[in-house]
Amino acid sequence: MAADGVVIAMTAEHVIATYEIETSVPLAQAAEVLAGEQSTGTFVRVERESDDVRARFAAQVESVEELPASGFAPLPGSVGDPADRRRARLRIRFPLDNFGPSLPNLLAAVAGNLFEIKELAAIRLVDLDLPPAFALRYSGPQFGVEGTRRLVDRPDGAMIGTIIKPSIGLSPGDLADVVQELCDAGTDFIKDDELQGNGPTAPLAERVKAVMPVIERHADRTGHKPMYAFNITDDIDRLEANHDLVVAAGGTCVMACINLIGLAGLEYLRRRSVVPIHGHRAMFGALGRSSQIGIAFQAWQKIARLSGADHLHTNGISNKFYETDAEVLASIAAVRTPLLGLNSTVPVLSSGQWGGLAHATYAAVGTTDLLVLAGGGIHGHPDGARAGVESMRTAWSSAARGETLEDALASSEPLRRAAELFGPARV
Amino acid sequence: MAADGVVIAMTAEHVIATYEIETSVPLAQAAEVLAGEQSTGTFVRVERESDDVRARFAAQVESVEELPASGFAPLPGSVGDPADRRRARLRIRFPLDNFGPSLPNLLAAVAGNLFEIKELAAIRLVDLDLPPAFALRYSGPQFGVEGTRRLVDRPDGAMIGTIIKPSIGLSPGDLADVVQELCDAGTDFIKDDELQGNGPTAPLAERVKAVMPVIERHADRTGHKPMYAFNITDDIDRLEANHDLVVAAGGTCVMACINLIGLAGLEYLRRRSVVPIHGHRAMFGALGRSSQIGIAFQAWQKIARLSGADHLHTNGISNKFYETDAEVLASIAAVRTPLLGLNSTVPVLSSGQWGGLAHATYAAVGTTDLLVLAGGGIHGHPDGARAGVESMRTAWSSAARGETLEDALASSEPLRRAAELFGPARV
Repeated sequence: MAADGVVIAMTAEHVIATYEIETSVPLAQAAEVLAGEQSTGTFVRVERESDDVRARFAAQVESVEELPASGFAPLPGSVGDPADRRRARLRIRFPLDNFGPSLPNLLAAVAGNLFEIKELAAIRLVDLDLPPAFALRYSGPQFGVEGTRRLVDRPDGAMIGTIIKPSIGLSPGDLADVVQELCDAGTDFIKDDELQGNGPTAPLAERVKAVMPVIERHADRTGHKPMYAFNITDDIDRLEANHDLVVAAGGTCVMACINLIGLAGLEYLRRRSVVPIHGHRAMFGALGRSSQIGIAFQAWQKIARLSGADHLHTNGISNKFYETDAEVLASIAAVRTPLLGLNSTVPVLSSGQWGGLAHATYAAVGTTDLLVLAGGGIHGHPDGARAGVESMRTAWSSAARGETLEDALASSEPLRRAAELFGPARV
Repeated sequence: MAADGVVIAMTAEHVIATYEIETSVPLAQAAEVLAGEQSTGTFVRVERESDDVRARFAAQVESVEELPASGFAPLPGSVGDPADRRRARLRIRFPLDNFGPSLPNLLAAVAGNLFEIKELAAIRLVDLDLPPAFALRYSGPQFGVEGTRRLVDRPDGAMIGTIIKPSIGLSPGDLADVVQELCDAGTDFIKDDELQGNGPTAPLAERVKAVMPVIERHADRTGHKPMYAFNITDDIDRLEANHDLVVAAGGTCVMACINLIGLAGLEYLRRRSVVPIHGHRAMFGALGRSSQIGIAFQAWQKIARLSGADHLHTNGISNKFYETDAEVLASIAAVRTPLLGLNSTVPVLSSGQWGGLAHATYAAVGTTDLLVLAGGGIHGHPDGARAGVESMRTAWSSAARGETLEDALASSEPLRRAAELFGPARV
């Protein structure tokens, strides 16, 4: 009980944030600057900043582990002699009571002003260990792997999906034709491109009106209803109406660009959604690509999952973007690592994917609880989309049975044909 | 009219995004990769990607202006021979109809996947030219300079404010005492620290209950009501209740950490707020500090202003963070540059501020339409907070009258005393 009679509910819970830094000041001092700036600290002690306040609220340096120097240029404005620069992994412990289990306020502490500290010549938030209190407040994925499998009627095997191409510019009529082809091709999942929002030439309402009758007719005819992830990214106040529009038409998934509506926007959507949320990571590269600054996927994906992402983009191996296969595989493993008892989130593998990558991917991840998206690999298959889907599905089945890629190529004509176009350099 | 009868409302409006890139592929080719990835492009032409679609929806390279190479290490995963690396400023034109005047969907195009493109060894979004359609959809600041001046009863001169210190850990009773001191000191504005959210040891409701009676009594006694910016940063669904709590108690300002609730979260708050929104830029450094990746303040602040920030942090000169004075002054100038006919936004100068910086700042910015915050400069003044505020106010008045810092030091004892503690190295 504080002196003025307010009950203060202190717990022993805390958050551990892990950082990679470079600095030209002594490592221990840089760690203290970071911990101080992000908790009780001003550089001078002020009135009422008692030892008691410091003891209860100060972030504590748990460990400092030196790493090999990167050799990269220091961030602009960093101080000290470049010759003294050293790299380290820091673990900093923040009392949960400083911010409570609120994700936006957590970020103020573990990622607020610290990217601006001039003693830091590199500064990345690379991981977060969060206490159970966050899972009491945030529900996480509502559907996850199990709910998604149920909705697409695919109880096992990799879920195979694709992206509407061209990404923008299709009229509603052309869009309906493309969706018809993709339904006929046997795909489990179709998504809008992240560039396809709610612009005047293809409003969401028009797309829903064009797409859903095709999907429903296909479902009536075949008993299988592909999941279409409509991109509902927009102002927060439009998310619920966009979602409701999709659901009212029979849609079974909404897609949101997490960084564009904000992690907090995703959490807002989660509280209203009755279908899986397909979490696109557009703009993540701005935070994640540099080795000198930002937030690593390992840390970011935990917040995205707590905020309710049922599906989360990780890229796939051999993708057309900057990440190495090792990084992609680490991202997939991160998304599959249990988190505070939440439902699972489905890793979404995309970019440059085709059947020939199934065996290498499966060997590394050991699961088919994945949504594997191929744009060109399905639309661009030399024998059409149906052969494209077939090539993907047989390859993944083969991989899951423990066969080699060579086995699969020997037994699957669609995969062989895909390999002729996409494969030689990779098989 | 499209073939299937849907009216397509095309306009000539477009967005110009300006980038700084480095690349080892020919500059013109890198520019085309960027424009393609962010509009119609896949690397292979797909069915239905007609010349008409390309003509109407493709982003166009407006200009490529070569810049001196930076000498910085390329971003991870970038391709090509480092010896070929060149730096350039690109201007890319996006048809507004690709996304419509929706800020989240705008970001998908101008800043979505492009940070992941491996042809780009550096990639920063440095400016955005937005068409008037955005100002029709987004209201921008509700109060701005004029509304803030009216509420704090300070029709001219720099508005002088401060930050609660210590930033976290004060009991409500201690907080009330600090606020009383700051009211008595004559400050126009007081703000919560960005680390002070809504944690269990100092919940927002308790802070409001402790602070507002002090402010109201002070207002009753003196006729002047300082503005207190309560940090209401939290989940989106709590923003309105947090705001209402502040307003119901007579509060005249709410503070939000823009990047933590998201730019879309700020826009959501703007639609509900009846008081000025104090926009804190915590975590901006993660996007803005590197010269190799991210989003420059010049571009980011336009979206923050459209989304409704009445006040926007820019740092001040001689601050304790990484930015140079030239960068800070450019940020202040950016916030003061008219934008699509919106209300003005008040630049907020903070970090390491004291009276001795007034003349140099005023000489560069030529205005007192500023909110100048001093933490240590007021709390830590050798003669107390009242002398701290007085030193700041006399310095800014002197600067605005065209005097020199030496004139001000000669005539103001509080400023001389401040200079003894904060000044020698700077005066």
